[in-house]
Amino acid sequence: MKNFTFHNPTKIIFGEKTVSKIGKEAKAYGEKALLVYGKGSIKKNGVYDAVVKSLKEEGISFVEYPGVKPNPILSHLNAGIELAKKEKVDFILGVGGGSVVDESKGIAAGAMMTGNVWDFYLGKADVKEALPVLDILTLPATGTEMNPTSVVTNDRTNEKVGRGADPLFPKVSILDPTVTYTIPPDYTAYAVVDAISHLIEGYFTGEDEWTPIQDGYVENLVRTIMECGERMLKNPKDPQARATFMWAATLAWNGLGVAGIGGFGVPMHMLEHPLSGIYDVAHGAGLSITIPAWLIWKAKTDSRKIAQFARNVLGIEEKDQGAAARRGIEALKGWFNRIGSPVSFAQAKIPESDIDSIADIALALANTWGMDDYMNRDLIVKLYRLCL
Amino acid sequence: MKNFTFHNPTKIIFGEKTVSKIGKEAKAYGEKALLVYGKGSIKKNGVYDAVVKSLKEEGISFVEYPGVKPNPILSHLNAGIELAKKEKVDFILGVGGGSVVDESKGIAAGAMMTGNVWDFYLGKADVKEALPVLDILTLPATGTEMNPTSVVTNDRTNEKVGRGADPLFPKVSILDPTVTYTIPPDYTAYAVVDAISHLIEGYFTGEDEWTPIQDGYVENLVRTIMECGERMLKNPKDPQARATFMWAATLAWNGLGVAGIGGFGVPMHMLEHPLSGIYDVAHGAGLSITIPAWLIWKAKTDSRKIAQFARNVLGIEEKDQGAAARRGIEALKGWFNRIGSPVSFAQAKIPESDIDSIADIALALANTWGMDDYMNRDLIVKLYRLCL
Repeated sequence: MKNFTFHNPTKIIFGEKTVSKIGKEAKAYGEKALLVYGKGSIKKNGVYDAVVKSLKEEGISFVEYPGVKPNPILSHLNAGIELAKKEKVDFILGVGGGSVVDESKGIAAGAMMTGNVWDFYLGKADVKEALPVLDILTLPATGTEMNPTSVVTNDRTNEKVGRGADPLFPKVSILDPTVTYTIPPDYTAYAVVDAISHLIEGYFTGEDEWTPIQDGYVENLVRTIMECGERMLKNPKDPQARATFMWAATLAWNGLGVAGIGGFGVPMHMLEHPLSGIYDVAHGAGLSITIPAWLIWKAKTDSRKIAQFARNVLGIEEKDQGAAARRGIEALKGWFNRIGSPVSFAQAKIPESDIDSIADIALALANTWGMDDYMNRDLIVKLYRLCL
Repeated sequence: MKNFTFHNPTKIIFGEKTVSKIGKEAKAYGEKALLVYGKGSIKKNGVYDAVVKSLKEEGISFVEYPGVKPNPILSHLNAGIELAKKEKVDFILGVGGGSVVDESKGIAAGAMMTGNVWDFYLGKADVKEALPVLDILTLPATGTEMNPTSVVTNDRTNEKVGRGADPLFPKVSILDPTVTYTIPPDYTAYAVVDAISHLIEGYFTGEDEWTPIQDGYVENLVRTIMECGERMLKNPKDPQARATFMWAATLAWNGLGVAGIGGFGVPMHMLEHPLSGIYDVAHGAGLSITIPAWLIWKAKTDSRKIAQFARNVLGIEEKDQGAAARRGIEALKGWFNRIGSPVSFAQAKIPESDIDSIADIALALANTWGMDDYMNRDLIVKLYRLCL
């Protein structure tokens, strides 16, 4: 194992009927909230009413800030910062999916910065303090509810960038799996792909060779997520599958799976971000295209870990390492497609002719994320060709 | 999954040469420490010198409080509370094994209580605030470095009781596996048994039926710990095995393995505490006696989970559930003995004639720990007879 620091102070409150606990939890952080949410689905499923009731019971006032987009955009985030400052809120309460929580983090950071919050996303400024962030998660997928990262798209440049800072760990995240029963099949599938992607980035790229704790952690969660994925698509109200997936998605990207593996990259996310940043493609849908492509390239020179994954997660019984890896990639790709997530540019209606311009954005990300030592433009173009 | 709250704010700093980080970390918690340690082994392996140097570099003064016993006793703990109060220390710094950290927690709690700290251990008083606890762990086993629990023996009554409170989570725990290379084989074996015991209590007694996240988490860690155990006994300076075991032991009892499983008991610890409380038996050595005994009894009426453990952890290939469970228990018991940990009262020189008096103490513990609905004196005596 490599040296590491692990510190995840987020308090998770998990289970049925936990939304109404928000008032009591929030009271420790002040008396006035910025209530951030998306297009208003929380008004249909009862979550909004439960939140408002709970806040009122504890005498907490709030200013509403709806309209967060599925891929949150910088202009909306900046307007949120202005509102938070003007209204002098004590904390940010995000109610929604990963995008809502990510934008809430950006607002929390920006409200206490003197400069432009985009500089933080670009790595040009640090966040050393932020307003407290609390959230009620309605779409498990990104893991943002238990990590310090926020992903935002600059709507002027199409750059989609993620960055983290310790003050952005949510103080409290409330996870009630019953509010996820109404997530439609396509978004359920994309969420499953997203959670799997978080587990396998470090697994396939980690620096250390012998990491049985982390390998087993990842393999078990991917197996569990795949089982839950199939069950949720068969029965969207399967209580066991919804609850287990929700917690698995949180554990998938809370730092535990990568603690001790040393340096690692996120090539599959690097390839994906330009796709959901430019096109009308969900993040998870983009990932089910870039994951197999990157694995096919990786397996050509290093199939050890992919073969291990194929055997331990996908049940591939094949002695030859290269063959096991290849069969594993095919099995994963086929499974993504079976649950309704695209596996090619063609399926996602991304034109082949755009590869050049997409590659420029991916290359910029590779530099920002410190993968420039093994990523270059030629390789990125080659990887996108494997996505066709 | 069942509803749960998970909140583990301990900061872990893991790896080679991390001991010297203590000064900078401690500075956030004040200028004067109570430096708690045991019989002075930290003065032989260089840890004491590194700590003192690091504290001095940051201008942190300290009062030394050595002499913590392997099973920490209340009278020494109480004297530590008096010293902490008299010297007006800002925080407690425990340097040593689980016993040192546990007593540090007790001192941290007692220093801010008006009443007697023993009332907290007995469940008659709550700890709502405590001095900050920081630690440098030199013997991985108990998991205390990332949980809020403290176990202490009342040296007047022989009662050995463990209890937790949120303010007792260590603020910072430094885990440097290289300082564990000198742990002798017997204590290495006991540490391995202890870590395994923490994983399997919830696994075998949890309320919920379908918990793949937690089952896989436990099974993977037990497999890993067993592999590391064998490697550490072969080569005490095996860097991979020492490091991996150290982190696995922390993860074994930090709340993650039991989050979502619902109510669970700790029958194997209940049976063990009187043994190490009364006799010259290490906690882990007591556990390798009580674990097989309890499993044998459990398997008579409910072998499902034991068979699962036998197959997934011990590689038992046996279709019949009852037979798989029985073979699994035999395999685990044999393995405990092979690594040098006792599996019977006879091996640990505990007289059969003491069963009656031991059972009384165990029964009191069953009541304190809320297991009185399924534990009674007759059953406890029966379980101890299986230990002979």
